[in-house]
Amino acid sequence: MVKAGILGATGYAGEQLVWILHKHPEIKVEFYASHNYANLQLTDIYNNYYGFIEDKCIDMEKAESRLTGIDVLFIALPHGKAFEITQKALGLGVKVIDLGADFRLNSPVVYKEWYEIQHGCPELLGEAVYGLTELKRNEIKECRLLANPGCYPTASMLAVAPLLKNNLIELNSIIIDAKSGVSGAGRSANISSLFTECNESIKAYGVGVHRHTPEIEQELSSIAGEKIVISFTPHLVPMNRGILSTCYGNLTREFTTDKLLEVYREFYGGDYFIKVIDGLPETRWVRGSNLCHVGLRVDKRTNRVVVISAIDNLIKGAAGQAVQNMNLMFGLEETEGLEFISMAP
Amino acid sequence: MVKAGILGATGYAGEQLVWILHKHPEIKVEFYASHNYANLQLTDIYNNYYGFIEDKCIDMEKAESRLTGIDVLFIALPHGKAFEITQKALGLGVKVIDLGADFRLNSPVVYKEWYEIQHGCPELLGEAVYGLTELKRNEIKECRLLANPGCYPTASMLAVAPLLKNNLIELNSIIIDAKSGVSGAGRSANISSLFTECNESIKAYGVGVHRHTPEIEQELSSIAGEKIVISFTPHLVPMNRGILSTCYGNLTREFTTDKLLEVYREFYGGDYFIKVIDGLPETRWVRGSNLCHVGLRVDKRTNRVVVISAIDNLIKGAAGQAVQNMNLMFGLEETEGLEFISMAP
Amino acid sequence: MVKAGILGATGYAGEQLVWILHKHPEIKVEFYASHNYANLQLTDIYNNYYGFIEDKCIDMEKAESRLTGIDVLFIALPHGKAFEITQKALGLGVKVIDLGADFRLNSPVVYKEWYEIQHGCPELLGEAVYGLTELKRNEIKECRLLANPGCYPTASMLAVAPLLKNNLIELNSIIIDAKSGVSGAGRSANISSLFTECNESIKAYGVGVHRHTPEIEQELSSIAGEKIVISFTPHLVPMNRGILSTCYGNLTREFTTDKLLEVYREFYGGDYFIKVIDGLPETRWVRGSNLCHVGLRVDKRTNRVVVISAIDNLIKGAAGQAVQNMNLMFGLEETEGLEFISMAP
Amino acid sequence: MVKAGILGATGYAGEQLVWILHKHPEIKVEFYASHNYANLQLTDIYNNYYGFIEDKCIDMEKAESRLTGIDVLFIALPHGKAFEITQKALGLGVKVIDLGADFRLNSPVVYKEWYEIQHGCPELLGEAVYGLTELKRNEIKECRLLANPGCYPTASMLAVAPLLKNNLIELNSIIIDAKSGVSGAGRSANISSLFTECNESIKAYGVGVHRHTPEIEQELSSIAGEKIVISFTPHLVPMNRGILSTCYGNLTREFTTDKLLEVYREFYGGDYFIKVIDGLPETRWVRGSNLCHVGLRVDKRTNRVVVISAIDNLIKGAAGQAVQNMNLMFGLEETEGLEFISMAP
Repeated sequence: MVKAGILGATGYAGEQLVWILHKHPEIKVEFYASHNYANLQLTDIYNNYYGFIEDKCIDMEKAESRLTGIDVLFIALPHGKAFEITQKALGLGVKVIDLGADFRLNSPVVYKEWYEIQHGCPELLGEAVYGLTELKRNEIKECRLLANPGCYPTASMLAVAPLLKNNLIELNSIIIDAKSGVSGAGRSANISSLFTECNESIKAYGVGVHRHTPEIEQELSSIAGEKIVISFTPHLVPMNRGILSTCYGNLTREFTTDKLLEVYREFYGGDYFIKVIDGLPETRWVRGSNLCHVGLRVDKRTNRVVVISAIDNLIKGAAGQAVQNMNLMFGLEETEGLEFISMAP
Repeated sequence: MVKAGILGATGYAGEQLVWILHKHPEIKVEFYASHNYANLQLTDIYNNYYGFIEDKCIDMEKAESRLTGIDVLFIALPHGKAFEITQKALGLGVKVIDLGADFRLNSPVVYKEWYEIQHGCPELLGEAVYGLTELKRNEIKECRLLANPGCYPTASMLAVAPLLKNNLIELNSIIIDAKSGVSGAGRSANISSLFTECNESIKAYGVGVHRHTPEIEQELSSIAGEKIVISFTPHLVPMNRGILSTCYGNLTREFTTDKLLEVYREFYGGDYFIKVIDGLPETRWVRGSNLCHVGLRVDKRTNRVVVISAIDNLIKGAAGQAVQNMNLMFGLEETEGLEFISMAP
Repeated sequence: MVKAGILGATGYAGEQLVWILHKHPEIKVEFYASHNYANLQLTDIYNNYYGFIEDKCIDMEKAESRLTGIDVLFIALPHGKAFEITQKALGLGVKVIDLGADFRLNSPVVYKEWYEIQHGCPELLGEAVYGLTELKRNEIKECRLLANPGCYPTASMLAVAPLLKNNLIELNSIIIDAKSGVSGAGRSANISSLFTECNESIKAYGVGVHRHTPEIEQELSSIAGEKIVISFTPHLVPMNRGILSTCYGNLTREFTTDKLLEVYREFYGGDYFIKVIDGLPETRWVRGSNLCHVGLRVDKRTNRVVVISAIDNLIKGAAGQAVQNMNLMFGLEETEGLEFISMAP
Repeated sequence: MVKAGILGATGYAGEQLVWILHKHPEIKVEFYASHNYANLQLTDIYNNYYGFIEDKCIDMEKAESRLTGIDVLFIALPHGKAFEITQKALGLGVKVIDLGADFRLNSPVVYKEWYEIQHGCPELLGEAVYGLTELKRNEIKECRLLANPGCYPTASMLAVAPLLKNNLIELNSIIIDAKSGVSGAGRSANISSLFTECNESIKAYGVGVHRHTPEIEQELSSIAGEKIVISFTPHLVPMNRGILSTCYGNLTREFTTDKLLEVYREFYGGDYFIKVIDGLPETRWVRGSNLCHVGLRVDKRTNRVVVISAIDNLIKGAAGQAVQNMNLMFGLEETEGLEFISMAP
């Protein structure tokens, strides 16, 4: 039984972790820590656990004092909040999985550029593994500090990676137009996230400056073996969950849709969670699962390919992938505790 | 391993059965039958099963020919469609669980009055058990023909039953104001169920004439030991899933909210799926689960009690309760395959 | 040209006032005051006015200094905030229309009981007119201090008033089950109003203790000539706008639906904004208008009547009715500036 | 007073026409024709008109017989249905505004390629004017047959046109990623448009093959003076109304966002309905208006520009632009009857 602690258990990604780990047969959660809801029962905030989880949330200090009793620490906090606790946890032999952004970028300079604060422990960046599971299994199995990818990067890179691995598109032609449900904005009391402000509307935001851009570029560049710059435009959609990533690239040679689907099927052949489909992905079919649906169309008229991927932003885009990575880090079956299918409708 | 067949596997209730049974450790589904989608793969209609269920839907005739290979037949068809197949199945020793309305009413006269067609096998009404599980466990365990309750009746009766059992309200003071998500209208191509017609609106419908009225009255009368007439008003709410039932009654003696909560907790003490909560139910906390949350308030000013219940209309209100009943009918643990918690948000 | 000032112009009710008055041919808005957005352009918060309204919001102090330049002051502030400014405005000969709750209750004792603060100018309660326009035209025309009704009370009383006026129901049998869109919760940064917390769910709240209860009881009692106590249960529905009020009462004598519709049509015969319909109201048909749709059904089985009304909570339930009242207070045509029809879909 | 007839008055675009023309001071609608609802009152289908419009819908044949009494015929029918009636109307001296696709493409060959039917009156294609009002005012004023643009093309071309007119982007670098509300799918009883199928999900559809592609290419090519091929990907978003079009292009020279905004402001300087905003468009700010909001960002890192436009698909994307064009065709003020602002929230 792996013993786990969760920091930030009452945010949406943290709560999703609670949900997954509650059913995971090989995990025992030792504590739920929350900044805003310390000393309240978890079920006071999330009534779905009524009758199932009796625990109270503890505060961050108390969590620190309980690091010695756990094997793995999940951190689901805003960026900049993971530096200290990560150092402490690692020092005590506790593996760390950070669902935030603090260990995703290799370079503290790039970190500062995009996050506008100094990195608190740049010496750890070298060993942190960027945990896009399907692309990094070997490194993940060995690591003690895992940087769980952002939701947009997960969807986008799973869509684009096979093209780059096979040199099928012009490197600087990549445009990613991504759409997210509102849970991606987190559980903070912001007017812009109010029901009445989001419902019946769609908007783009952070055009050209969204913080998920550098991690996409870093990882895609690493795949391509060459520095890549992309256009990335996130949008907010009036739904709770889901990311749809529509990715465009100029093909370097002629392809049919069918041929390219074969390339994708070969690439993801052994991956339980990635489904290359003939049709076009819809977020509803993966909502509530750790799956990623990928579909594509070659447009002969423009010689472009459009690859579309769909994930649940809180699962494959956050808590689910974190558990998938944890499974690997602790020698468990990769799919353990994650074999649930999307519930329709 | 119990072998099951599903008629109407591609409607919303039927599909929910597929989802539940797919994960149920003691069940094997032998066939999925669909009127509209025969010969198509289930995953063509419900892409969430891509990679998990390979079966094709079969047509109704073929389903009939395969009754000999199953132990239980789930029927999720419109009313009036279950008569013949039920007779055949029972004749072959197959137990039947009808999610539709054909065996819910004891009287063929009342059936005709509300459903406007002649009942096709009134001789079976005597043995059919109305499967509101928490109130009928003993009969359910023994029966071979189970009439699964409607979604509104399930929510409403779970809210009101403890009052009647304990003679706490004036019998003819019961008013049930219920609100349902749009999946309750089924997966039929009706203009009134279009996104653009339902979104951003709420309405009442079937005021005083909704077909769930007689089954609520029949069962509540049976509890009270006296004929009860109720006011029942359903509403359509712009959400996929969920029923909230707000029930009013005049108390026969003084009570506090706390005292009445105790009565409810005693009544439902042993029931895994019924959670009597201090607060007020919200459908989101039970969505995607077989749970029913019940809350209440005594209003001293009016000497009325307001009891509110929340269920997922497709699970506790349909497929989940059907499986709960099947578990009892086959000597399995009542909660088997149904222990999932609502996923938030 | 009537000169108006708006306090609280950036809340939802205030903004709706801006929208209506912008098109009103007889009104000129002299200032928009906002607590949270002083010195910002109105269009910074509400981009729909881009290119149409250039004004900056002013702060409350500045607003006070500009009372001398206006004929009427609209106050759209939280309860307890209208006392002082109302006194000042009246003192300067400015008529006041308060969209909040501060002048709705006749009794400072009842005010304190429900709002939990001391009333700041009880001496004004005697002259304040409760502005449910269709029921109080004569008083409204003469008044200088108008208490604009709450959204729930508007919908509910328009549904119930004809029954009481004609002595058709048992006085203490009235149960009002009301459903509101999320804009009713206001534009405050509360977690409970986040998109992700409200979407795909319905809940009741404030059962038995909602602050709109006493004003409904006060006004209905006044109509009936006798003290009435009601059950009032508000619900939150995942939509931006709209209130549906489902009202139950025990009939004192036999009626058919058609006969009762006649009673209603007679009662509201001359009222432009009240439409008694044969069918059942849906909020979408009145959304974005100052209309109230009323429909009803007599249920012979229970001898109850169910009356259902639908309004737009921000228009007939707030800003629209405020302007309707203003029209009367300034001798304008009652419908001036309010003749817009709901836009479907 | 211009006398108008509407064919297809009960579809969403047709109904929006009804709504606009009802308030238009210079128009009188002589008849509302509907295929599916002939002989029903308009208000039976659209209850918002209760008390305002008493007319019954007439059938198509009757409409034909009444062409002699009108000045302009609005056609809001599926493609392929406008050929005959247009010929008849023009023959009688009635001007025609077709909101469908039958006269948008100059070439009958291209029409057949994308719409898969033979064009019924290719001889009219030469004189039909493609009515993107802001780009074609002079031709529109003179024409008797107007092809009203599609919703996606309207949003997309208003975003891209200034770049092409000023030779600022590489012609074949244009990628348009567009998102539409569900009313864009029309008021047909399709399962894929059901609330429960659309809510809580987003999907792309018609990738590379959507029928709005050729009209975008035709008109952009005409602006550029050179054949342009674009990538166009439409998406379905769970909201009733609105289109957001996110357009990408490679700049031919260096620009700042501010400089490019100036170019846009100059381009649209005199256009009442086009608002070039500093921020990023959101569909909610134009919903219910004939406005188009345009915003943009230059991304120095990629040397790409991202231009985003937002419209209401049923107004500027259909009925509103049709009326705007009609105003020009009949010498009225362009903005007549269209000066309403979006209602928030």
